[in-house]
Amino acid sequence: MSSIFTKIILGEIPCYKVAEDEHFIAFLDINPNAKGHTLCVPKKEINRIFDMEESHYLELMRFSRKVAKALEKTIPCDRIGISVIGLEVPHVHVHLIPINEMKDMTFQHKVKLSGEEMEALAKSIQESL
Amino acid sequence: MSSIFTKIILGEIPCYKVAEDEHFIAFLDINPNAKGHTLCVPKKEINRIFDMEESHYLELMRFSRKVAKALEKTIPCDRIGISVIGLEVPHVHVHLIPINEMKDMTFQHKVKLSGEEMEALAKSIQESL
Repeated sequence: MSSIFTKIILGEIPCYKVAEDEHFIAFLDINPNAKGHTLCVPKKEINRIFDMEESHYLELMRFSRKVAKALEKTIPCDRIGISVIGLEVPHVHVHLIPINEMKDMTFQHKVKLSGEEMEALAKSIQESL
Repeated sequence: MSSIFTKIILGEIPCYKVAEDEHFIAFLDINPNAKGHTLCVPKKEINRIFDMEESHYLELMRFSRKVAKALEKTIPCDRIGISVIGLEVPHVHVHLIPINEMKDMTFQHKVKLSGEEMEALAKSIQESL
């Protein structure tokens, strides 16, 4: 069965898309730790990041950097944190999180944005790419 | 003033070293989330990972992958998690954490190993590189 991220990539589930190229997609996390929390995902469904071919992994990290730079321009924050976990969805995803405090990285404090706010935010980030 | 990681790189503070090349060093986190929790650090002192030059950043991620592969061979775990935060030490460090559960990624649960255990662990990881 396809992962939820593959369904997003195929357009079967909607997302607030931030960036996309031939091999990767970035969209807002629907349950964000902080405003602008974004997931960068390879279109190829692979469970563990270190099982990716080295070149594919490095391209994902290059893509993630480009998205992080756009987040920095869009969201006031101390810095962009990175987290790769993957215990819940078995499809590689790099969390990019605009952070100010440690609690922004623990996945235990969440922020709520409306659909309109998410839409506008995704658009601003896109425009900063 | 030099960061604590620069002091480690210069040999002024000891560490349980796992890997080193011309530009990067990896050593065991002294206050680990889980057994094998390792930090990968560029020798050049830079505060924020996305302020690194792209090529330097990608080399850090390549180095981190090499270390992660050695961790996978050494520590029984579900996978190796990645975290980059940097709110405490203003010198880029990639956390590589052998994880089984979400709590291994929250930095709120710590494990205690003796100096002898840390030494033996660093040696095993080195040998898996």
